[in-house]
Amino acid sequence: MPTTTPQPGGPTPQLFFQTANAYQQTQALKAAIELDLFTAIAEGNRSVSALGNRCGAAERGVRILADFLTIRGFLTKEGSQYALTPDSEVFLDRRSPAYLGSALGFLHAPKFIEAFQNMTEAVRKGGTVAGEAGTVAPEHPLWVDFASSMIPMMAKPAAEIAELVSRIQPAVKKVLDIAAGHGLFGIEIAKRCPSAEIAAIDWPNVLTVAQQLAHQAGVQQRYRTIAGDAFQKEFGTGYDLVLLTNFLHHFSAATCETLLKKVHRSLAAGGRVITLEFVPNDDRVTPPLVAEFSLIMLATTPEGDAYTFKELEQMFRAAGFTRTELQPLPGSLEQVLVSYR
Amino acid sequence: MPTTTPQPGGPTPQLFFQTANAYQQTQALKAAIELDLFTAIAEGNRSVSALGNRCGAAERGVRILADFLTIRGFLTKEGSQYALTPDSEVFLDRRSPAYLGSALGFLHAPKFIEAFQNMTEAVRKGGTVAGEAGTVAPEHPLWVDFASSMIPMMAKPAAEIAELVSRIQPAVKKVLDIAAGHGLFGIEIAKRCPSAEIAAIDWPNVLTVAQQLAHQAGVQQRYRTIAGDAFQKEFGTGYDLVLLTNFLHHFSAATCETLLKKVHRSLAAGGRVITLEFVPNDDRVTPPLVAEFSLIMLATTPEGDAYTFKELEQMFRAAGFTRTELQPLPGSLEQVLVSYR
Repeated sequence: MPTTTPQPGGPTPQLFFQTANAYQQTQALKAAIELDLFTAIAEGNRSVSALGNRCGAAERGVRILADFLTIRGFLTKEGSQYALTPDSEVFLDRRSPAYLGSALGFLHAPKFIEAFQNMTEAVRKGGTVAGEAGTVAPEHPLWVDFASSMIPMMAKPAAEIAELVSRIQPAVKKVLDIAAGHGLFGIEIAKRCPSAEIAAIDWPNVLTVAQQLAHQAGVQQRYRTIAGDAFQKEFGTGYDLVLLTNFLHHFSAATCETLLKKVHRSLAAGGRVITLEFVPNDDRVTPPLVAEFSLIMLATTPEGDAYTFKELEQMFRAAGFTRTELQPLPGSLEQVLVSYR
Repeated sequence: MPTTTPQPGGPTPQLFFQTANAYQQTQALKAAIELDLFTAIAEGNRSVSALGNRCGAAERGVRILADFLTIRGFLTKEGSQYALTPDSEVFLDRRSPAYLGSALGFLHAPKFIEAFQNMTEAVRKGGTVAGEAGTVAPEHPLWVDFASSMIPMMAKPAAEIAELVSRIQPAVKKVLDIAAGHGLFGIEIAKRCPSAEIAAIDWPNVLTVAQQLAHQAGVQQRYRTIAGDAFQKEFGTGYDLVLLTNFLHHFSAATCETLLKKVHRSLAAGGRVITLEFVPNDDRVTPPLVAEFSLIMLATTPEGDAYTFKELEQMFRAAGFTRTELQPLPGSLEQVLVSYR
């Protein structure tokens, strides 16, 4: 990351200007993805003129954009030749299986951008001003985009959680994936645990993404869906494992407790819940990139938050769980909680 | 500045997500300024509940916003009490003479935001798509806001340049301030050099700001204005000093040369030009915050740029100047060039 020029003492307005202009970073990245600049570099177009030809863009435009992306850590520059950083190779070359460029469709959905444009009002109100329920409104169309967009990003955590689940003895049979979204978490478990049958609950428009993915993975025989709201729909009972990935942060602690009680009732003896969450430290300001997540919940949900481990543990205890363990997820900002019935 | 959580090897999509969401930093800062949160903390409201009362905002909103601002380096947090950093005390407390909050009016002018929203098109075209001439269109209303907004930020460089000018022997008499804007650079010189008479050229709507400031500084007797375009208007001749502060970066090198030839003709024997500019190194990617400035010129002007010292020196030489010296400006991202007739 770029550092500020050392200041010989005295106050400096640089942080103010950097932050006031931070939106420009977002727009530069968006332009590079729209022009497919990263893929063009990966293909071997390393000079301004080659990139201009390949991207259909003016040399002045390409030069200034590529320099900016170098400054921001997406590219390297050697003389007048640009190259991708290792991270950009994996996530920003369109031909890479982990390509993330399409996630901008969700991350920059007009509803999201609008929620942040009304940040002042959201702070006054203490919750989103983007409609009554923000992005947690039933069947909000955002979540279909989200489901598809997040697949490359969630591949690694999903594989790691499946690995963890595959070590559980006796092997898990009945698995409930709450707010399954793209379905990746349940599907990865189905792939690694031949005895596992997955029930995925989500809004019907989102479930089509999960069903497709289950089919592609060849696990559709052990994959069924429950269309509807996780707070309303009957889960059934006898589950060995319930997945709660990236779900609790959308709701208040009281709402989470209500849901967890319902989850508790659905578990078989010896059953457990695996939760994936952004879990800041008790100070709520570290680790920075984890603690920052709260702001998104303020802007886009009525009562959501990034909860500390203490808060999450307390919710699970109040819902009847005997103990909750925290487990870091290598390479991810999120952490896994395992809660035992 | 927040650092990323150390990753145990392997590629990470964090930079992508941070940058895709960077616009949220801008919105959080804007909300804090609109709610006057920094002033509220400076007044002694240090807890979430005191801040909520003072700012008329919900506690959840204030807590999440203040935590975010702590993460981003604007505040400190001790237990549940917030405090301003030294920089925030100087620049973000509304009662401070160096208060910068009002600069958002200019920095976030719809024309600017719109120019960046069309970044992809600007890269394709190689220049702004915000109207034919972008922000350098004659009498663009932005510059009136700009003139007022930049006063707190330019106070220190203006004082330092005036200090430098006050040491010139024999003392400067005739000074021309090109694209004077707020007028601060000429006015500071008038204050420190009793023999100096300032002629300030800018569009008429902008000059009203400079005239007011000259009056407040009590130098109006030695302050005259030339209303019009710096490329069109006659400068007159016999100037000991010409000021070119934050002007050249708006234009192509060829256009700059044309202007510099005109400037050269207006100088007396022994006369010199003082230029204030963002001057990146030859690699165009360091120092980061200086080199980044090019992107703003791409988005908002047809042909502007942040020029290297070599490029600037070449422009001055081509316009007839005998030599150009670079002089760093302590505490500023910009540098001063002194060019001799």
